[in-house]
Amino acid sequence: MATPVIIFDTTLRDGTQGEGISLSVEDKLKIAQKLDRLGVHYIEGGWPGSNGKDIEFFHRSKELNLTHAKVTAFGSTRRKDSKAETDPNLNRLVESGVSVATIFGKSWDFHVHTAIQTSLEENLNMIYDSVRYLKSQGLEVIYDAEHFFDGFKNNPEYALATIQKAEAAGADWVVLCDTNGGSLPGEVSDIVKTVCSKLKTPVGIHAHNDCELAVANSLAAVQAGARQVQGTINGFGERCGNANLCSVIPNLQLKLDYNCVSEQQLQSLTSVARYVSEIANVNMAVNQPFVGSAAFAHKGGIHVSAIMRHAKTYEHIVPELVGNKQRVLVSELAGQSNLLVKAQELNLDMSNETNQTKQIIEKIKELEHQGYQFEGADASLELLLRRAFGDIEDIFTMESFKLIVAKSPGDSVVSEAIVKMKVHGETVYTAAEGNGPVNALDNALRKALVQFYPDIRDMHLSDYKVRVINEKDATAAKVRVLIESTDINNTWSTVGVSENIIEASWEALLDSIRYALIGKTRIEPQADRQAQLGLVNH
Amino acid sequence: MATPVIIFDTTLRDGTQGEGISLSVEDKLKIAQKLDRLGVHYIEGGWPGSNGKDIEFFHRSKELNLTHAKVTAFGSTRRKDSKAETDPNLNRLVESGVSVATIFGKSWDFHVHTAIQTSLEENLNMIYDSVRYLKSQGLEVIYDAEHFFDGFKNNPEYALATIQKAEAAGADWVVLCDTNGGSLPGEVSDIVKTVCSKLKTPVGIHAHNDCELAVANSLAAVQAGARQVQGTINGFGERCGNANLCSVIPNLQLKLDYNCVSEQQLQSLTSVARYVSEIANVNMAVNQPFVGSAAFAHKGGIHVSAIMRHAKTYEHIVPELVGNKQRVLVSELAGQSNLLVKAQELNLDMSNETNQTKQIIEKIKELEHQGYQFEGADASLELLLRRAFGDIEDIFTMESFKLIVAKSPGDSVVSEAIVKMKVHGETVYTAAEGNGPVNALDNALRKALVQFYPDIRDMHLSDYKVRVINEKDATAAKVRVLIESTDINNTWSTVGVSENIIEASWEALLDSIRYALIGKTRIEPQADRQAQLGLVNH
Repeated sequence: MATPVIIFDTTLRDGTQGEGISLSVEDKLKIAQKLDRLGVHYIEGGWPGSNGKDIEFFHRSKELNLTHAKVTAFGSTRRKDSKAETDPNLNRLVESGVSVATIFGKSWDFHVHTAIQTSLEENLNMIYDSVRYLKSQGLEVIYDAEHFFDGFKNNPEYALATIQKAEAAGADWVVLCDTNGGSLPGEVSDIVKTVCSKLKTPVGIHAHNDCELAVANSLAAVQAGARQVQGTINGFGERCGNANLCSVIPNLQLKLDYNCVSEQQLQSLTSVARYVSEIANVNMAVNQPFVGSAAFAHKGGIHVSAIMRHAKTYEHIVPELVGNKQRVLVSELAGQSNLLVKAQELNLDMSNETNQTKQIIEKIKELEHQGYQFEGADASLELLLRRAFGDIEDIFTMESFKLIVAKSPGDSVVSEAIVKMKVHGETVYTAAEGNGPVNALDNALRKALVQFYPDIRDMHLSDYKVRVINEKDATAAKVRVLIESTDINNTWSTVGVSENIIEASWEALLDSIRYALIGKTRIEPQADRQAQLGLVNH
Repeated sequence: MATPVIIFDTTLRDGTQGEGISLSVEDKLKIAQKLDRLGVHYIEGGWPGSNGKDIEFFHRSKELNLTHAKVTAFGSTRRKDSKAETDPNLNRLVESGVSVATIFGKSWDFHVHTAIQTSLEENLNMIYDSVRYLKSQGLEVIYDAEHFFDGFKNNPEYALATIQKAEAAGADWVVLCDTNGGSLPGEVSDIVKTVCSKLKTPVGIHAHNDCELAVANSLAAVQAGARQVQGTINGFGERCGNANLCSVIPNLQLKLDYNCVSEQQLQSLTSVARYVSEIANVNMAVNQPFVGSAAFAHKGGIHVSAIMRHAKTYEHIVPELVGNKQRVLVSELAGQSNLLVKAQELNLDMSNETNQTKQIIEKIKELEHQGYQFEGADASLELLLRRAFGDIEDIFTMESFKLIVAKSPGDSVVSEAIVKMKVHGETVYTAAEGNGPVNALDNALRKALVQFYPDIRDMHLSDYKVRVINEKDATAAKVRVLIESTDINNTWSTVGVSENIIEASWEALLDSIRYALIGKTRIEPQADRQAQLGLVNH
């Protein structure tokens, strides 16, 4: 039997300390449900003593019917020179109605003197009183020893004394925090071993990523005896973030044979990671280990021909174990073997022999020569292959567009787009404004299509990149535009190339919408909307 | 004396295997110069046997006058069942003119059978012959043992035999590669120790980040005896990337007391990391350890009040050691000392004390908050400083512009720009076409100015980059445009920011031309040209 390791998720609390991360109560409730299905054991929902949004979360989390995870609220030890029973912060934890409280206290003598400015003795009392009071209220108590490693390195006796106080008061867990993220795996391992030899209470680890070592430190702590890991989805968190549970869990489970979640739950890891990024409205790094879209993507021709013989040649695990998949990037660096694998993914029969295959390869070579790059534009490549195989119908065709960008003295810049297109044989004329030329074109285009395909209302452009291909004469040279689009389930990328940045953007926009429409249901625009849309029957 | 660790940078080779990373020869040359100043010991520039772009890089790198780093070219061992002396790949290395060759060979018996499909014996010969041949050509040889850790775990005797062959043939370094990125620090440590006990040749480590452990594995290898670390700036590289030198170097040097680069060189780390991201046109993660803009940013109220008492309370190192800085509020200023240096360069008296200096710093903070970034836009910064010191006169002012981009059925896209401006008090109206909207604006603008300042005929735009700053809603978000311009003597960069890509480009174009006009002589347009120019006297 594999040794169990308990997973404590703090995406909703420490994760929101990350720059640019902000979650509404609704967001938090949605994420909590996903975390529960992923199989984490604790969900730290917030700090009820610090803001009202968090109090509402704890109130509403009771309606979630979580099947697996316990919700826990965060707070600090009582204030100095006061009573735990009347401490507002501790009483907020009790009032929040959770069954588990997580409180932090000081381990580092320097912090006791400098940050909270009290005596070493009073700090010990603050820890003891706070844990004991929460236990007396029937709560499970997780004690987070803030700055434990820095404290231990500076004054081991005192650091140990603080967690022994927490143990004496009845804490259910003692979690050692590398709050500043400055410790190295060797130190973490040694210190956790020492602590485990001194305590009966089970020990946990809470690591930060300031040295790019949070995952390594978490693994080192578990190998040294820790049985709980605190971290966040995608490593969100203050400064450089917390230990990334999307890497900690598969490493513990697939590489070190610990047991964190079930096999099925592990297979949801990639979708949970992407979902949390989506809700938090941040772009996930494509190269994120295990769950990133490039984590099992192959570019070099040598690698690709080898993985076709055997995936293990260049993949450290089977991607499906974490719900991810292999991708082959089609690029100038790669041979045609990449393309064959891509066609297989789409169930298109593209054996090495036929004329059709040769034509497709010639076409792609020609496009890459013109400056297209498909490794960052999966959706454009898929459209190209599907078109070549007659696997897709063009549901709209473009007739013309006109774009006007004007600035008059004293006014801000105005962008207008006028688009004429045929949708299912009907001519549609639309015009729209936008914050910029591409936004105006996007608005006009979607205005024309949304009445036929209401689903495209959910999609939006999530990234836009421009690169000059031939840099000799920049504004007269060709540019490549990459557009990334997102809806509730997917993210896809498209490419456009032209000497004209507007035309290149336009091309990538069209591909993005064409891809979004694959498999979508068409509806008939209501009669009273037809006039507004400028529908003209031919 | 601290033990030296040699830094081998492969940003230009393995780094470009990362999804979305593509570097021109010019880009590579620029980055190589920065790497040299950072103090890396080897710069792996590419694979001359694989593409012509890399051959050009090696040719041109000789003009760089690098003061510190050696440039090395990458390749593989000879083909099976052939001679090293006639192997095209090996001969490309020789012809590239570098003094150091880096070649990889197979260590994993599974790969010998599956990927290159030859006998274990022949693989040993391939390694021996290739290293010996390159040595006989007078080259320093770094032998990269591909998949060494997977190979060792599967068949330790054979894996050791491969590197012993490389040693016997005279390799100067044996570098152990965790090519699939699947190994853990404990394994890496044990295996490196074993290898170091069997070889006399110095050993290196080449780690990949598939388990989010590349930095930890690199440190573990050094602590076990490795004396060279291969990696990339910002961890660029295939799949999840290579070991991130921006974390490896400060960890080795500041935490473990090894010696990689000088103290001064370490202080350039943040600016090198940002420069490389800028050139590669990818967004750097704000939470990147050590060098990210959020690496020392404090959000939580408790943390902020503690760091105001003492920075050490929530910072694991002094940020200036790596050229980064603490951020508390929204204060993005890229090093006020940089600003002082810049002002000195321009002979502007900008001591730390005056009101004027404070106002300039406030202005720059405000602009950086809006999304401007002056690190990649020296000329815009210079204009801003000169303007603040009254050191420059505005020789033209803009009144209005209008841009029309249109595509009709069957026609190509047409871009027209109409510009109204005042030059030395005279109103000038011009219109021009272009290959794209920015080119049309550039043409109209220069048409208006060239009669007054014929010298600007020599300048042209040499690079044009666009970045979405706030990625929440891509085409409606702010964009930053960086324009690089070149004339016979100089290259300079300018920046523009707006929600509208055209307006941002326009702003950067104006700065580019204003910069070009500094110190240029004005002439009076000839009478017969005035009508053509649309000059109107007011």
